[in-house]
Amino acid sequence: MCAGELYLSDEQTLVELRARAEDLLDDYNQLRHRERAERKDILRTLFGGCGEKLLVRSPFMCDYGANIHVGENFYMNTGGVILDCAKVTIGDNCLIGPQVGIYTAGHPLDLAEREVYEFAKPITIGDDCWIGGHATINPGVTLGNNVVVASGSVVTKSFPDNVVIAGNPAKILRHLEQPHQYQKP
Amino acid sequence: MCAGELYLSDEQTLVELRARAEDLLDDYNQLRHRERAERKDILRTLFGGCGEKLLVRSPFMCDYGANIHVGENFYMNTGGVILDCAKVTIGDNCLIGPQVGIYTAGHPLDLAEREVYEFAKPITIGDDCWIGGHATINPGVTLGNNVVVASGSVVTKSFPDNVVIAGNPAKILRHLEQPHQYQKP
Amino acid sequence: MCAGELYLSDEQTLVELRARAEDLLDDYNQLRHRERAERKDILRTLFGGCGEKLLVRSPFMCDYGANIHVGENFYMNTGGVILDCAKVTIGDNCLIGPQVGIYTAGHPLDLAEREVYEFAKPITIGDDCWIGGHATINPGVTLGNNVVVASGSVVTKSFPDNVVIAGNPAKILRHLEQPHQYQKP
Repeated sequence: MCAGELYLSDEQTLVELRARAEDLLDDYNQLRHRERAERKDILRTLFGGCGEKLLVRSPFMCDYGANIHVGENFYMNTGGVILDCAKVTIGDNCLIGPQVGIYTAGHPLDLAEREVYEFAKPITIGDDCWIGGHATINPGVTLGNNVVVASGSVVTKSFPDNVVIAGNPAKILRHLEQPHQYQKP
Repeated sequence: MCAGELYLSDEQTLVELRARAEDLLDDYNQLRHRERAERKDILRTLFGGCGEKLLVRSPFMCDYGANIHVGENFYMNTGGVILDCAKVTIGDNCLIGPQVGIYTAGHPLDLAEREVYEFAKPITIGDDCWIGGHATINPGVTLGNNVVVASGSVVTKSFPDNVVIAGNPAKILRHLEQPHQYQKP
Repeated sequence: MCAGELYLSDEQTLVELRARAEDLLDDYNQLRHRERAERKDILRTLFGGCGEKLLVRSPFMCDYGANIHVGENFYMNTGGVILDCAKVTIGDNCLIGPQVGIYTAGHPLDLAEREVYEFAKPITIGDDCWIGGHATINPGVTLGNNVVVASGSVVTKSFPDNVVIAGNPAKILRHLEQPHQYQKP
């Protein structure tokens, strides 16, 4: 599933993994925001990988959780949806605005295939990115480091480091200066 | 109301129908996802018509429910909103992505009218359609069979069978081959 | 914070104000829609100012609440998010569609600043506006009276009275007749 190939969405193990995620998400979304420790524990169990600092406001939804790997200092605002049928990798110090959709899952355009299969392509987001509210990230997209996605953008292709992108479909709006001594510690 | 004419949104029967839907939706959205049988029962009670296979992830919201008619094998992902002030008809084998809005309800552009009335125009979606995540379907839109709506599209007019549409406002991106022997059983 | 200047988002008082809002919002979103009196009481406590007639469908999320000032006869449909890190002022008789985002909060484009600061710019919406579903309103935007924002619009700049705006970024689609005797009572 994680390799971007067609897969059967009702295959047994996937069904169990989905059920596990649904249970964890139901717990998560019914917890009050002030229950910070319990909330963080659930995210650690749900996600495939994460850093020490981690905050996701409810409601939050994903498919499996196990395919989501976020770096240190991750923040996702309310109403976020990550369809992690393929791997979603997000770097350090990323800020995700409210009502954002990160979708690895798609369906074949050919009807005969669509009736049987889903497909999924990994999404990779670098370090120090800021995804504005109401943005949509499509299957297969890779964003570099220090990318700012304007609110409401629909990101249909990949973009390199140090750019601001905006629009539907998203295009480069401006280039950002390369940060001084930008070196991952 | 269902005929696309102006109506008073606080007319008594509508108020009762809305209250009924709110109660059912509050039940639905507070149920855990694993309570599949109870969830399906609520949808059957809420919707005006539906098939045997039916899955809608929470949270889901609509206005009346009674104006929603979906075909066999209906799937709507999380965060969906259907404003069914007029009739919403969706065919068989349709997949609706997360965070989608299907809005039959509008308000007159003329301020004096807007203060008193709402209007609503029916939305019709054919068989075998796939509506991508974060898409918006406006009042009065009809989509044919085998239409793929790209994620983030804002659909402001009607489209025929076998097309992929995308953008804000949505336009035809490509034509799909007519499926072999595409005949409704 | 309300003056549109950079601020430290983890400054103590803000942390407390956020925690208060989170608690009120958790109460609000867990109440059934039929609990109209309790719901209205919470909104009155949460918001910085509001009129007598006031309806917000769940789920609803904001940052502080205290920075939100809405006029008489305010309606916001389901799934709304108001990031009120700066002041949000909305006039009388405004209708906000479902899945709308009103975001005063942003982050500096410069990475070094972004790691330390957020910024926020006030949003002002006049009387008699109708914000369509899935619309996004960006930091610093001012909309005049009688502005109709089409569904799915991304509003990146300010607009005057009596216009319909649409698109990403939103542009004027048409001018509306100035309402007869448009005088605030």
